[in-house]
Amino acid sequence: MNDELRTRTALLGSSSEAATRVFTTILTRSPISRIDVARLTGLSQAAVTKAVTPLVAAGLVDDSLGVTPTGLPGRPANPVAVVPDAVIALGIKVNVDELIGVATDLTTRIIASDRVPLASHDPVAVVDAIVGMCARLQEPLGDLRSSVACIGVSVSGDVDTATGVVRDSAIMGWHGVELAAALREHLDAAIVVDNDVRALTIGEHWFGVGLGTSSFGIVTIGRGIGSGLHLNGEVVEGAYGVAGEIGHLPLTSPDRICACGRRGCVEAVAATSAIVAAVSAAHGRPVAVEEAVALAHAGDPAAVEAFGEAGAVIGLAIASLVNMVGPELVIIGGEGVVEFGLFEERLRASYAEHVFGSAGDCRIVVRPHTFEDWARGAAASAIRSLVL
Amino acid sequence: MNDELRTRTALLGSSSEAATRVFTTILTRSPISRIDVARLTGLSQAAVTKAVTPLVAAGLVDDSLGVTPTGLPGRPANPVAVVPDAVIALGIKVNVDELIGVATDLTTRIIASDRVPLASHDPVAVVDAIVGMCARLQEPLGDLRSSVACIGVSVSGDVDTATGVVRDSAIMGWHGVELAAALREHLDAAIVVDNDVRALTIGEHWFGVGLGTSSFGIVTIGRGIGSGLHLNGEVVEGAYGVAGEIGHLPLTSPDRICACGRRGCVEAVAATSAIVAAVSAAHGRPVAVEEAVALAHAGDPAAVEAFGEAGAVIGLAIASLVNMVGPELVIIGGEGVVEFGLFEERLRASYAEHVFGSAGDCRIVVRPHTFEDWARGAAASAIRSLVL
Ligand SMILES: [Zn+2]
Ligand SMILES: [Zn+2]
Repeated sequence: MNDELRTRTALLGSSSEAATRVFTTILTRSPISRIDVARLTGLSQAAVTKAVTPLVAAGLVDDSLGVTPTGLPGRPANPVAVVPDAVIALGIKVNVDELIGVATDLTTRIIASDRVPLASHDPVAVVDAIVGMCARLQEPLGDLRSSVACIGVSVSGDVDTATGVVRDSAIMGWHGVELAAALREHLDAAIVVDNDVRALTIGEHWFGVGLGTSSFGIVTIGRGIGSGLHLNGEVVEGAYGVAGEIGHLPLTSPDRICACGRRGCVEAVAATSAIVAAVSAAHGRPVAVEEAVALAHAGDPAAVEAFGEAGAVIGLAIASLVNMVGPELVIIGGEGVVEFGLFEERLRASYAEHVFGSAGDCRIVVRPHTFEDWARGAAASAIRSLVL
Repeated sequence: MNDELRTRTALLGSSSEAATRVFTTILTRSPISRIDVARLTGLSQAAVTKAVTPLVAAGLVDDSLGVTPTGLPGRPANPVAVVPDAVIALGIKVNVDELIGVATDLTTRIIASDRVPLASHDPVAVVDAIVGMCARLQEPLGDLRSSVACIGVSVSGDVDTATGVVRDSAIMGWHGVELAAALREHLDAAIVVDNDVRALTIGEHWFGVGLGTSSFGIVTIGRGIGSGLHLNGEVVEGAYGVAGEIGHLPLTSPDRICACGRRGCVEAVAATSAIVAAVSAAHGRPVAVEEAVALAHAGDPAAVEAFGEAGAVIGLAIASLVNMVGPELVIIGGEGVVEFGLFEERLRASYAEHVFGSAGDCRIVVRPHTFEDWARGAAASAIRSLVL
């Protein structure tokens, strides 16, 4: 980090609450007039100007645009915009079999990406792989290499963001892995370790479909069934690090045993592995996931039913989430969305059957998240940690 | 309302966000030193003093206590305290068969209470009964009658607090009842209509066990199974007015039909009426709720099982809530808590079986809420509407 970058991160980290609100508003809605910043933050225009001045001085905000955001003639609206390259973030998603990484600007626009198989789940090996990926992500950045201020790493499971400890990650077989501390020994940047769905939720709130909603949830389908919630202006963290474990709600029959050992979990029916197991059992031989998908598309009754049953229980899970917290919007994402047509009919039917009263006005939006989107979420989580 | 009271409510309603935080901190933690107010609000001491001055001038805050909150000698800590009688609130809980009302000071300390049977669910008759109760609650108040600034009314069901419309209340048989508007024709005070569990949650947050927690849930058991959530500094309202419908999560067998018409709801097994129906069916004759309780205490297997099954499904519901949002604390309340011993063993067992990872560090606290506590919650909701 050079001095200029240090000034920027120090300014963001030490801002008053009002200044933080001003910056996040500019960050997520650039370009924007000062009048609109005042309206959206509830601050006076004088307070907005007071907050903007040091941000401009530090090179984080540009106030010399000279045109109205809408391009309309008339009184100058004095627009301001974030300087996207003022801070560069790296975001890395740890999957069970590979790392996906991106380098992004402050608005999580991707400027470089990288992907590498993960040979081992040994924490030391994974740390090495992450450090190597960070080096590769910075290579193509040129002058922007000196602007990398923060690195976000996201992992499935119970992650304590405050301490950077992965307390429990079933897919990695990790318990109490001090990931942030290990990475800090190798990397000169702010390190943030977060749960993967929570990071995705932060990304959707600031730079995605969640922007401007009062509350929303994300439900991810695929290898696992996860969720993230954004309520009352913030992501729901969980007082003890765990939240969004929608995959382990006991919504199906107790004779279905989940990989977590509990009975009747959503994942016991709806995780990819459960679907594959059901199709394999019906056909009396091991069926790979690609074949299960092909069979379902071809109308094989057992495969159609396995995806349908998964869709039905995911619909119950979404209805449970909506009945409990009443969000404005639910985004369905995750790698399973690629084959959403196999889940959709029974998912929507069981959701409609169980959602309660006007909570059912909640919009359901299906949004394919690419693997790079997950890495972008990790970058968003790291950027958030600089700002909040 | 006299001019003095009008000044107070106008000041509270027009305060900046910082001043609002200062007032709510003083309101909930009186007496408190200015240093502690600054610490808890994250504001400078100068900003605290700036916010306190008009509150003192309006008679809402007392800064002439002259002793430290702890009573310790030494440098004067300059404590401040709310003036409890500066504003009086009325709170009324609409039950299916009666109204319960209280008059409280600003800290929801009860200074008068009233109870009246409800002969009819006709909205006009209920409005008349509420207006009559407000008059009776004010009679014993003496000089404080002129300080009644706000009236909260809480009802079970889907309530739009912003418009004061009860959109849907199964127990009252109401759909789209414009309760606040009807009450405003008769009452000279700010009227707030809220969902009953949400109001209870507000009361627990400001003046109960919820004070000082980062997040908590309330689960009420009895006639219905409800819940309220307090996350990220605020009660969860539901974007469309509905949230906390834990009683209609599909956590039990689909062959159990709920009073709401859906299959497999928690209430289909755990509501008082479902327990009574199960005991009656087993004994081949109508059994009243008091007898069902007595039978269970006497060891009657059918009655023991009916309460036990209810406890098990309530445990699943609490585990679902905890897995989804990870609160610091869950408070179990509601009239069913009087017989909590009949639910407890199976409730705790199924909760422990299904709660996920460190989310299970969530403390479970059983707290009997009297009917007056529900009315206090309605008063707390009304006080909150003056302040926020
Ligand atoms: Zn499970
Ligand atoms: Zn129901």
